[in-house]
Amino acid sequence: MKKNDKKYMTLALEEAKKARVLGEVPIGAVVVYKGQVIAAAHNRRELDQNPTAHAEILAIQKAAEIIGSWRLVDCSLYVTLEPCPMCAGALVNARVSRVVFGAKDAKAGALRSLYAIGEDPRLNHLVDVRAGVLAVECGAILTDFFRDIRRSKSSIDAEE
Amino acid sequence: MKKNDKKYMTLALEEAKKARVLGEVPIGAVVVYKGQVIAAAHNRRELDQNPTAHAEILAIQKAAEIIGSWRLVDCSLYVTLEPCPMCAGALVNARVSRVVFGAKDAKAGALRSLYAIGEDPRLNHLVDVRAGVLAVECGAILTDFFRDIRRSKSSIDAEE
Repeated sequence: MKKNDKKYMTLALEEAKKARVLGEVPIGAVVVYKGQVIAAAHNRRELDQNPTAHAEILAIQKAAEIIGSWRLVDCSLYVTLEPCPMCAGALVNARVSRVVFGAKDAKAGALRSLYAIGEDPRLNHLVDVRAGVLAVECGAILTDFFRDIRRSKSSIDAEE
Repeated sequence: MKKNDKKYMTLALEEAKKARVLGEVPIGAVVVYKGQVIAAAHNRRELDQNPTAHAEILAIQKAAEIIGSWRLVDCSLYVTLEPCPMCAGALVNARVSRVVFGAKDAKAGALRSLYAIGEDPRLNHLVDVRAGVLAVECGAILTDFFRDIRRSKSSIDAEE
């Protein structure tokens, strides 16, 4: 683990909390370039009704705007949940150097769980992948969110 | 092949031609819903300096805006080149019903060549994939584009 991995993942978790307040699945991401956070974003799929509005895609788009290039060379992305195939593919396309994720996603994770898209030598870019930073905290915010949804659903069912 | 596959792929090719005029790698896509083209887009990566601005992502985003939902149920996407992992993942995330592509992409194709992300039973949505519609035309516009780039590069080198 690198020195500041926990610090940056804590910032990604802050982004996830913003998503939670908005009723979105709480996932957050930040992009770090030369020791500076240049982009931060959280999942906005429901609010924007946009299937591509995952935290990672939004953070990548913001970072490219800041840098003024689609090539995010020497950038690191921190995200609370293991990226899905779309986001893992975007990280490769954007030439992101390093990706650090928190909790594993057994159902759709594409950097370790189902695929290893960041480490596929057939693709034209390899990503340095680090898994499990603040994994417990990053996982807990998600399990709490889904537990609360189930509870509010069953209380509605009980009232009906 | 379905009745209108060639017709819709021809429209995707028209989009690819728009990208070529702009100096972008010529790839185009359209989204069809209930027999109507509701979105059309072409690759804009260089112009927008956005690593996610592939034809498919832009077409999916437009279609979601038109439909007013991130779920592109009963939508078909036609694209001139086999989608990369990012775009294949986006098609699954968007619940696109059917994807028709033209030319195969041996280097990054994620629906048939390197991965079969649309047909992975571990993911939460399966896409009906059809490959090779107007494959020759869809491939030719790309090979011509890259040949022209190489030629103009070597004529610059010869002048220097």
